[in-house]
Amino acid sequence: MKTYIGFDMGGTKMISAVVDEQMKIVARERVKTGAHGGAEEVYGRVVEAIRDSLRSAGVDRPEAIGLSIPGPVDRARGVILRTPNLGFKDFPIAERLQKEFGVPVALENDVNAGVYGEYRAGAAKGYRYVVGLFMGTGIGGGLVLDGRLYGGATGNAGEIGHVTVQPDGPLCGCGRHGCVESLASRTAIAKDLAQLAASGKAPTVLQKAGTDIKKIKSGVIAKAFEKGEEAVIEVVERAARFVGMAMAGCVNTLSPDVVVLGGGLVEKLGERFVGPAREAMRAYAMADLVRDVAVIAAALGDDAVPIGAAALARELHA
Amino acid sequence: MKTYIGFDMGGTKMISAVVDEQMKIVARERVKTGAHGGAEEVYGRVVEAIRDSLRSAGVDRPEAIGLSIPGPVDRARGVILRTPNLGFKDFPIAERLQKEFGVPVALENDVNAGVYGEYRAGAAKGYRYVVGLFMGTGIGGGLVLDGRLYGGATGNAGEIGHVTVQPDGPLCGCGRHGCVESLASRTAIAKDLAQLAASGKAPTVLQKAGTDIKKIKSGVIAKAFEKGEEAVIEVVERAARFVGMAMAGCVNTLSPDVVVLGGGLVEKLGERFVGPAREAMRAYAMADLVRDVAVIAAALGDDAVPIGAAALARELHA
Repeated sequence: MKTYIGFDMGGTKMISAVVDEQMKIVARERVKTGAHGGAEEVYGRVVEAIRDSLRSAGVDRPEAIGLSIPGPVDRARGVILRTPNLGFKDFPIAERLQKEFGVPVALENDVNAGVYGEYRAGAAKGYRYVVGLFMGTGIGGGLVLDGRLYGGATGNAGEIGHVTVQPDGPLCGCGRHGCVESLASRTAIAKDLAQLAASGKAPTVLQKAGTDIKKIKSGVIAKAFEKGEEAVIEVVERAARFVGMAMAGCVNTLSPDVVVLGGGLVEKLGERFVGPAREAMRAYAMADLVRDVAVIAAALGDDAVPIGAAALARELHA
Repeated sequence: MKTYIGFDMGGTKMISAVVDEQMKIVARERVKTGAHGGAEEVYGRVVEAIRDSLRSAGVDRPEAIGLSIPGPVDRARGVILRTPNLGFKDFPIAERLQKEFGVPVALENDVNAGVYGEYRAGAAKGYRYVVGLFMGTGIGGGLVLDGRLYGGATGNAGEIGHVTVQPDGPLCGCGRHGCVESLASRTAIAKDLAQLAASGKAPTVLQKAGTDIKKIKSGVIAKAFEKGEEAVIEVVERAARFVGMAMAGCVNTLSPDVVVLGGGLVEKLGERFVGPAREAMRAYAMADLVRDVAVIAAALGDDAVPIGAAALARELHA
């Protein structure tokens, strides 16, 4: 059996998955990232997690290793350029792992890996032009064009979360104003819901999470939605419409055949988020280009990233 | 000498250019389109113009023919899907010309052909990821990604002129509101200038063109600009900033290495239009992605389209 390692390096936890030729996960090892220890400490845990996952799967040697990184990478040199939280800076992780395991190593950033996973084995399988948007504390984007992960001139294309949809909109984490992320990420939604909770218009939110935006997570939002709290529904649908506007810009520019939406809130709300986003996309995009564009929820959840990383490793090896 | 026909079919005039391997035009025939006569009449003129241009160049038989069409095409089948003004509908022009001249025929829409011409032989030569925007009565866009003209799932990607930059902005020709075309095309600028002319704030415009938006052409706008009419400069720079916002969306999404701006107004104003557009692009795009993006004026003028069509014909033949 040929297998590939699909490794998801996250800010707090990491997953090493052993993935077969059909892109099914046959073994999976979860470990804490241990970011406080610095890059060498994290690197040691990566190696150990890969070994443990191989042992669980009964595999001596994978064909290749794919790593997804929470930050920008230099694919050609196999270097992690930087990670905001994990202490990596110009770290030649591909070379290190290649020496350690004797197999080729692919690097990719995590959003791209997730979009690629959905394309190769998830909701976007069978399409060729894929726009992926993952909603979380921010909004990450990735593109598959003509069947290949697209990086553009810098390798870091797909920053759809920072497309401006409201020129004088709210301050965004990136320092500019009115990016779709500043209006429609889970953080943006939580800010509005905290205010509603404080003013008594979102009782379920108030009861389950109070007014702390860090506690207003996807599950809480979905609960309030299910209870039919009008103000909450309005906030979420407004966010979905901003996402739809950004999708429309992608449709007009790229003419994709599918848009995949993912992240915790989409997983919890499904069509109740996807529907208003799709509707706004259709309203703001050119008829000829948008007519046949499918808009669907991601299917793989947390597995999208390791599966995508493994798929990229497989291509490296092929 | 190997030569290619680069044919630009326009609404009122057509150009048949004989282009050599170095993408230099060695002969050129201009004719009226004769749109009132319908598709067969126009087709007859196309054939005649190609023959005349070959005769001028002393060429018996070109290697291939490239046609640019003012409307959507089906490249694979070689069919003009429709032209708003010329009476073509599902017209199998590639097959007809192939029988007539015995050589392969490439079809492309005119904006894509123009962007490709600038990429192969003009301002964008040497770059690999090109966003092209041509400002005229509308705003047309085209993309070269990783060295190839990009069409997406429908073949008609690159409608950057219809990306929304002001959600509740002016009505656009496409029926939606706030597309960059509705705010920054020459038509949009002319609307504002007609109003300024009527209220005495744009004396040069009033003197040269009156208040008829059809008469307020690029030359008039440039003249008023040169005379330092503040209100005119403000209108033009505002339009350039909207173009820069749309460019920023492309940069965040596609990570190009160059943005080429073309069309009559850019030809006349050069850096006075390109400058404010570049500045707005930098303000609205992600720093990592925009850092090395060049923003330049198109170099080939009216030759961009026939040269691009010839370049596409050449690739068909290669």
